[in-house]
Amino acid sequence: MVIARTLHELRELRQKMNGTVGFVPTMGALHEGHLSLIKRAKMENEYVIVSTFVNPTQFLPGEDLDAYPRKEKADLEICRLAGVDGVFVPTEQVMYGEDESYLCAPRIRSYTLEGIKRPGHFDGVLTVVMKLFNLVKPTKAYFGKKDAQQVMMISQMVKDFFLDVEIVPCDTVREKSGLALSSRNAYLSAEEKERALALSKSLHHAIKLIKNGERDTDVIESEMLKILNDVDVEYVAIKDRLLNEVPSITVGDTVILVAARVGSTRLIDNMWI
Amino acid sequence: MVIARTLHELRELRQKMNGTVGFVPTMGALHEGHLSLIKRAKMENEYVIVSTFVNPTQFLPGEDLDAYPRKEKADLEICRLAGVDGVFVPTEQVMYGEDESYLCAPRIRSYTLEGIKRPGHFDGVLTVVMKLFNLVKPTKAYFGKKDAQQVMMISQMVKDFFLDVEIVPCDTVREKSGLALSSRNAYLSAEEKERALALSKSLHHAIKLIKNGERDTDVIESEMLKILNDVDVEYVAIKDRLLNEVPSITVGDTVILVAARVGSTRLIDNMWI
Repeated sequence: MVIARTLHELRELRQKMNGTVGFVPTMGALHEGHLSLIKRAKMENEYVIVSTFVNPTQFLPGEDLDAYPRKEKADLEICRLAGVDGVFVPTEQVMYGEDESYLCAPRIRSYTLEGIKRPGHFDGVLTVVMKLFNLVKPTKAYFGKKDAQQVMMISQMVKDFFLDVEIVPCDTVREKSGLALSSRNAYLSAEEKERALALSKSLHHAIKLIKNGERDTDVIESEMLKILNDVDVEYVAIKDRLLNEVPSITVGDTVILVAARVGSTRLIDNMWI
Repeated sequence: MVIARTLHELRELRQKMNGTVGFVPTMGALHEGHLSLIKRAKMENEYVIVSTFVNPTQFLPGEDLDAYPRKEKADLEICRLAGVDGVFVPTEQVMYGEDESYLCAPRIRSYTLEGIKRPGHFDGVLTVVMKLFNLVKPTKAYFGKKDAQQVMMISQMVKDFFLDVEIVPCDTVREKSGLALSSRNAYLSAEEKERALALSKSLHHAIKLIKNGERDTDVIESEMLKILNDVDVEYVAIKDRLLNEVPSITVGDTVILVAARVGSTRLIDNMWI
């Protein structure tokens, strides 16, 4: 496995890959969720490149950029064991210069849901993903459905800018308890982790209601909020797959999303119906 | 010569090009300036693609988007005679969708010079150029030095986003009178065209002063303004090649720029020292 830290090393690595390349861009602190993306990329491509870069431009002032877990040694070992061909581990200086041009996410769709509490977050995500795509030149790129809005913004960018890459949204991986895996779970105390289960429980309850025939989004949202009464809810939302508001549910074209703070940790979760 | 109007037609055209591709993106209304870009692209590449698209996102409200000259038939004939292999003539619907992601030019460097009177102009330029680059996949792309700040913003974007294209800045073509060729010259009356010569005259005067040993930018600028007293000056500026302010001139690393209105027509010109 090649570890590329500079543009030159990455380009040299990429040049040697004569076939399909699956790309898994991450912020490191790899867990089973990332591993499932890597496994899928392995299955579907001749080569796999993983990047681990805690991208500063997608953190807002006051967010957890400094605290975000960094586990380079473990990350590299996980990639090695998973049969990854190359890991790109750039510094901020490799990825960014001063007074640069940058990507702006769609002004309407990126300012709902996550965008309300994290304005500008998706500008940073799209900027770094576009840079990484141009460097790695992947055939397919793998993203977790857990960051549903992120997957949609990136798919939108690929379409808007005519990029030659296929975006593959992958199912969220969960603990047995139902908790969606997240690098930020590391911030949770045992008691908070227990309370955090309300997110997945509320989503499972929504699915149960839908299975029982409920279609009214207001009814489902208020039922979910009852289960979420012990955490600090930022939003509960039921949208179509393009994240437009919908008054009622269409099975096969719905995403139910929740964001909440548990203690000082911000968590998100969703299920695609 | 292939005329591609849809994404499908352009991709089909591009796929058949097995070799270096020179790209000349234009807004149509082709003149000798564009032709010199095309000739250089022909010389340096196996294939040449020209695009003619009046890009709405780089016009500000109240600017001349509707009035901008459209001469498709003549443009295609000029390209055919010049031996161009393919012309991309997209509609707005081909290039843009609704609520899209877009490029933002560097917040500092794009808000000097042109950016002061045309805030957001370079966002539109970079967005369309990035889209076109991703579609055309050129080896080299040719731009006129007349739009000096544009060439620099595009070169910056190529660097920021790790694009695989070489930007080739090409010398400004002038009428015998000295007037820099521009599609917007079509707006000028005979009397205005005469007055417009003040721009190139002021630049030639600046060069003469520099040849005589003058290095102080303030002195040169005030001498230029005397020549420009009969037009409505927006700016006279002396910058280094990265468009930073400089207190004195370094030959080989200087651009002298001028923008002015002549009647209701806005003109720009510059010389690279």
